[in-house]
Amino acid sequence: MVRSSRVAVVGGGVIGLACAWRAAAAGFAVTVHDPAPGSGASWVAGGMLAPVTEVLPGEDDVLALGAASLDRWPGFAAELAAAGTDPGLRTEGTLTVAVDPADRAELDRLGEHLARLGRDVDVLRGRSLRLAEPSLGPAVRSALSVPGDLAVDNRALLAALLAACRTSGVEFEPSRCETLPAADVVLLAAGAHSGALHAALRGMIRPVKGEVLRLRARRGVPPPPSRTVRAVVGGRHCYLVPRDRARVVLGATQYEVGFDTDVTAGGVRQLLDDAERVLPAIGEYALEESSAGLRPGSPDNLPLIGSLEPGVLVATGHSRNGILLAPLTAEAVLALLRGVPVPPEVVPAEVSRFAGRGNAVTHGRDERSEA
Amino acid sequence: MVRSSRVAVVGGGVIGLACAWRAAAAGFAVTVHDPAPGSGASWVAGGMLAPVTEVLPGEDDVLALGAASLDRWPGFAAELAAAGTDPGLRTEGTLTVAVDPADRAELDRLGEHLARLGRDVDVLRGRSLRLAEPSLGPAVRSALSVPGDLAVDNRALLAALLAACRTSGVEFEPSRCETLPAADVVLLAAGAHSGALHAALRGMIRPVKGEVLRLRARRGVPPPPSRTVRAVVGGRHCYLVPRDRARVVLGATQYEVGFDTDVTAGGVRQLLDDAERVLPAIGEYALEESSAGLRPGSPDNLPLIGSLEPGVLVATGHSRNGILLAPLTAEAVLALLRGVPVPPEVVPAEVSRFAGRGNAVTHGRDERSEA
Repeated sequence: MVRSSRVAVVGGGVIGLACAWRAAAAGFAVTVHDPAPGSGASWVAGGMLAPVTEVLPGEDDVLALGAASLDRWPGFAAELAAAGTDPGLRTEGTLTVAVDPADRAELDRLGEHLARLGRDVDVLRGRSLRLAEPSLGPAVRSALSVPGDLAVDNRALLAALLAACRTSGVEFEPSRCETLPAADVVLLAAGAHSGALHAALRGMIRPVKGEVLRLRARRGVPPPPSRTVRAVVGGRHCYLVPRDRARVVLGATQYEVGFDTDVTAGGVRQLLDDAERVLPAIGEYALEESSAGLRPGSPDNLPLIGSLEPGVLVATGHSRNGILLAPLTAEAVLALLRGVPVPPEVVPAEVSRFAGRGNAVTHGRDERSEA
Repeated sequence: MVRSSRVAVVGGGVIGLACAWRAAAAGFAVTVHDPAPGSGASWVAGGMLAPVTEVLPGEDDVLALGAASLDRWPGFAAELAAAGTDPGLRTEGTLTVAVDPADRAELDRLGEHLARLGRDVDVLRGRSLRLAEPSLGPAVRSALSVPGDLAVDNRALLAALLAACRTSGVEFEPSRCETLPAADVVLLAAGAHSGALHAALRGMIRPVKGEVLRLRARRGVPPPPSRTVRAVVGGRHCYLVPRDRARVVLGATQYEVGFDTDVTAGGVRQLLDDAERVLPAIGEYALEESSAGLRPGSPDNLPLIGSLEPGVLVATGHSRNGILLAPLTAEAVLALLRGVPVPPEVVPAEVSRFAGRGNAVTHGRDERSEA
């Protein structure tokens, strides 16, 4: 593919923007098609870059992919900052904590699993935990500390990506695509909406709703933790991602209810109930925003990256990990545009793994209209 | 006072707008001074017109005042509708319910108190209560039904008042008053902010914060009650005011924390917890808005209506009852402008009751700069 090829990116979330920026910087003529770039699930997200504390036993490919992308994050953030806008990378690390005995057992299993994988994990207890994070409540008796799991201000990141795209010559077409736009190569990166754009993706990508609250410590109230805190409370997972000295993002519920972005009263209450077990002062925080986004779920929690047919690439299905995986996804998409191999960790995420299963990976434009 | 007098109304909430409309319709040349008319506490409110279910033993003057204003509400609403915009009066009535045994004892005392006062009150129990309001939860075993306590869509009301003001020739000056504007008569109607505008009001009017949620029944979820439901849950009061077939306003917390309109996480959680005891489906409702307003509290829960000095009137301190009391307050202010007696129920609310107590009711402009 020649460097002057016209590339149409469908979707201006974190994945689409990262790919557009990298492609434009490499010399491709890129247009991003999105009625509202930088909104959607990327805007709602918490911004954790936490492949280690996110891992589920049996999902080692997800961990390897996330870890490979996390390795690229400091350079990615530095390049964005050099392009003009700091994306707000936070390097204080992550704690995973548990509240009830059953939650602590789950945490112990995670610790053992990570130790077997050779990951850098410490256990903090008692006084050392209080000293590290004095705002944590008495129900939190121990924590797994994962200093390598980071976070980023997702909204600063989107602003930085939009600025970098513009600086690199990316054009924006502010409309929703009903059909694939005309271009030498189309990249489908429309998140949860991608399934409607190509027959090969039908039934492969489903919206997984997540509700997220944004809170601010009021005057005289203990500030949020300095690290990201992931918690298991009564079997449910929640996270607290600090933004600045006073602000914190609290997430996230998980529902599979179609294309619905209502924030439910029950979801808000559950997040606040669970967070208060971890951070007792949170009742005194100002609730600044409640919002919901649609994660693009895939059948196996790995994204779908690759070629659907000649001239049509895809990068979606990043589930909870879109922001974490943006640098590596953009690198893989650039490799696909150039016709060179993708990074090895991306191979398990190649869309070809679903060949022959459901609709994924068709090999001719005609098939799209049939499905 | 001649009918062509220039009247400056400081404050464009429900009280200021109602007074401005009535005065302009009576021939006064009225200007409303407010940086954002129709916002503030009136915008946040629930819109209950419920003097009977709001009553506290020992506050019979508050009840008499509220009942006299409620009597005027149907005519007031009809005149606003005739002026072009329907304020959304709802006449389904009000239920007061209790959840815990101690709450039921409080409800019984309220019922006995209202019976002694000769108010129209029914008790609904069991099957008749379920038939009347099927969305109420099993914890609600009985209810006092007060068919005469109504509600209004506070935001439709503000729109209707703004429209009626404009039709009647009221002018708007969109700036905040630091000093009293030049006019033949100034009416101070700046709600919780009134205390800063005149020495006589200093220490008399305090902001009482209230948090209010707006929710919507999602598809497949039981709709809100058809009546306003006031509840006592674990000693706390909350209310649910239906807006249309799906929407409901849930309020209100009460804090005395100065001029602070943060919505707190703890306040939201408490409202949702309490409301779920009353309306179990509420967890499935969409949380569309959370907001906080500042009620203008007075020392005795009666408003302050009257003359502070020649050429300076006041109508503030309406506490939780500003919307209920708007018609009667406007009528009283028009009487003051015309130099005729106010309606008898307003006499206990006259500002002169505080003469000699604190700063209220000074008798010369010079004193203002001293306090």
